[in-house]
Amino acid sequence: MSETLRIGVAGLGTVGAGTLQLLQTHYEMVAQRGGRPVLVTAVAARDRRKDRGVDLSGVRWFEDPVALARDPEIDVLIELIGGAEGPAKDAVEAALASGTHVITANKAMIAHHGTELARAAEAGGVVLACEAAVCGGIPVIKSIREGLAGNAIEGVHGILNGTSNFILSDMRTSGREFGEVLAEAQALGYAEADPAFDVDGIDAAHKLAIITALAYNCQVDFDGVYMEGIREVSGVDIDFAEELGYRIKLLGIARRTNGGVEQRVHPCMVPRNAPIANVEGVDNAVVATGDFVGTTLFEGQGAGAGPTASAVVADLIDIARGARLPTFAVAASALETLPSRPMSERHGSYYLRLMCRDQPGVIAGITAILRDDDISVESMVQRGRGPQGEAVPVVITTHETDEAAMRRALARIGELPVVLEAPRMIRIEHL
Amino acid sequence: MSETLRIGVAGLGTVGAGTLQLLQTHYEMVAQRGGRPVLVTAVAARDRRKDRGVDLSGVRWFEDPVALARDPEIDVLIELIGGAEGPAKDAVEAALASGTHVITANKAMIAHHGTELARAAEAGGVVLACEAAVCGGIPVIKSIREGLAGNAIEGVHGILNGTSNFILSDMRTSGREFGEVLAEAQALGYAEADPAFDVDGIDAAHKLAIITALAYNCQVDFDGVYMEGIREVSGVDIDFAEELGYRIKLLGIARRTNGGVEQRVHPCMVPRNAPIANVEGVDNAVVATGDFVGTTLFEGQGAGAGPTASAVVADLIDIARGARLPTFAVAASALETLPSRPMSERHGSYYLRLMCRDQPGVIAGITAILRDDDISVESMVQRGRGPQGEAVPVVITTHETDEAAMRRALARIGELPVVLEAPRMIRIEHL
Repeated sequence: MSETLRIGVAGLGTVGAGTLQLLQTHYEMVAQRGGRPVLVTAVAARDRRKDRGVDLSGVRWFEDPVALARDPEIDVLIELIGGAEGPAKDAVEAALASGTHVITANKAMIAHHGTELARAAEAGGVVLACEAAVCGGIPVIKSIREGLAGNAIEGVHGILNGTSNFILSDMRTSGREFGEVLAEAQALGYAEADPAFDVDGIDAAHKLAIITALAYNCQVDFDGVYMEGIREVSGVDIDFAEELGYRIKLLGIARRTNGGVEQRVHPCMVPRNAPIANVEGVDNAVVATGDFVGTTLFEGQGAGAGPTASAVVADLIDIARGARLPTFAVAASALETLPSRPMSERHGSYYLRLMCRDQPGVIAGITAILRDDDISVESMVQRGRGPQGEAVPVVITTHETDEAAMRRALARIGELPVVLEAPRMIRIEHL
Repeated sequence: MSETLRIGVAGLGTVGAGTLQLLQTHYEMVAQRGGRPVLVTAVAARDRRKDRGVDLSGVRWFEDPVALARDPEIDVLIELIGGAEGPAKDAVEAALASGTHVITANKAMIAHHGTELARAAEAGGVVLACEAAVCGGIPVIKSIREGLAGNAIEGVHGILNGTSNFILSDMRTSGREFGEVLAEAQALGYAEADPAFDVDGIDAAHKLAIITALAYNCQVDFDGVYMEGIREVSGVDIDFAEELGYRIKLLGIARRTNGGVEQRVHPCMVPRNAPIANVEGVDNAVVATGDFVGTTLFEGQGAGAGPTASAVVADLIDIARGARLPTFAVAASALETLPSRPMSERHGSYYLRLMCRDQPGVIAGITAILRDDDISVESMVQRGRGPQGEAVPVVITTHETDEAAMRRALARIGELPVVLEAPRMIRIEHL
């Protein structure tokens, strides 16, 4: 058996402790699959006395992750500190500059600085691997980068945030509203005290930006991702979706378009019989379509200590085995710069819900505006009769149209005196 | 860019032609992802004049695949001839002995001779890769071998044969019987003229044996796979399954057990809300559960020229990049010999359908036999009242029991004069 691979772990939170636990539990198995022993020889974390449930005897301790990253006695730095900038990025840059391989679970950092870090890795002749940054333990990066490498990718979409999916699934099955389910998710530990990253689509957008770079061999462009979260999805929309044969999911969608790339994260209505519609609870799933392979789906737990540790160790075993793949499938210098297609150019169907005063002429006023923007109505439902002056929902689905036209129409519809609340719009996706 | 990787393709059927087409269509992309140009420089096939829809100008032609395999001017042999023995195996052995990497889509050969061929590859210092042998373009081998490499695999199961899944899906939705649907599948080209490989579970068992070796790092043991096909599944069982909340799927199941491994392919009733229950049509899917990652699912097209070519080229890009992974995750010399657990030791629930004469005392006689073997009844349905002497179905589901006990009881039940046809038994799996 060859030389031991010496690991430094920066950050000993839940994922760090999980990774140490995995490497201790499966020491023999990892050595056999990696072709050599893999040993954590150093860690960096703040509080030395905290009990993390793992044996740290014989492991060198650093207070400063950058000092750990520069240590010549480690071959691989595992960065589990988190945050797009600050100590995490400093440590990663220091390691890459020192000729030390880096494995990271840090989606924010890779989404914001992936291209530049991949270049640094290439310059240092080392690996920068980030399987754990996308969908936890599901080997999404490996599958797109290697498993589907023979394909031009026609499109990728996925449920990239478990918390949002849990909330939407629960809203549907329990009939409760967003706020109530979020509060429960926070109590259960599925959602953070500040839920913005999860429910506003930021976390999903981080992952989508990374997936896009992998699928299209382009520079990571987080700023090019259109983002809309799930705070505005209400129970009544979920009920109408069911009635119309759809299910509401927060999807990340990436597509190569003429001369550019489209990246967007927003709630979608997807046909109820689509495989992605049936991914429920905290699970993540990614659907990738290639020109030769057709459509493939990858599903599993997208977060948590165990799944994330699993992804970190998969990258570690690759490095132990001698794999030296570029971060985004091709040499960093060859990553294309693809312009992002603006959301206003999205072409597709729409679901609209308008809360209207129940009086004659309402529908005529709304449909006249849609007609003016060449938007063709596919179906319309007016449900219930409210007491005088109370709002009743009018639900419209449209045939395919441009987002720009839809937004113009919605602005005008919102100004109608009979429309009592801001119109709600959810995009329909037949993926 | 480094030296060109020179490819020899043995076998120019649908998959061979698809592979050539992929490599021509995506020549630039494959070179970029593989880090070097990848070029088919030689082929072996019988009929030189046949039009295969691909440009073969400048490609050297061999009649004998073994001569191609021994050619020092190729770096990788792609074997697409098929068959567990004969020219396919001869060519693969010749290539490995000549220090030439091998990529194959040949599940029968790997299922029967995988261990010995992996040893030959190791001795020759070359790669033997077979992603295309399992579930077409879905990167199942890569995912288990590399993506989940940090896990002890607790169990793997899957829909491993698209033809059987198509037939069962169609029987359920159309209400037609096996024979009629099979005939249609044959007409559509989904099933071979001799359907035995597909509908008797042999093809699924080939794939399962390979998956088992990967998941448990043990020698490939095709003879250890218990096999039962779908010919006996009838429309009435599919209807009862729906009524009981199940769906019937032909599954391959592998599990590590105390001191051994369990490998079986047979029709199963799975809960209708299980992800695997919703994999329909010709799709394949594999569910792998690891101790850290939890449960993951991989779905896609399991056969066809495009998907299979996609898997072949994924292996090719790995080799071009310099990956040198052992066929079954660990060194061939380290593959364990695991005894197979006999089917008689299966412990689980059962669905029984008995065609009985409709007369008093029938149920008493059957349940007495079950009681004698300590088998506890979970539910019982007697449907319809037949005219005097005509058989009516009695459906029983049991609590967990041993297969040996169930078989003893079924033999006795089958001998009861009121039981007019051979009892039908389908195993219930809560995976």
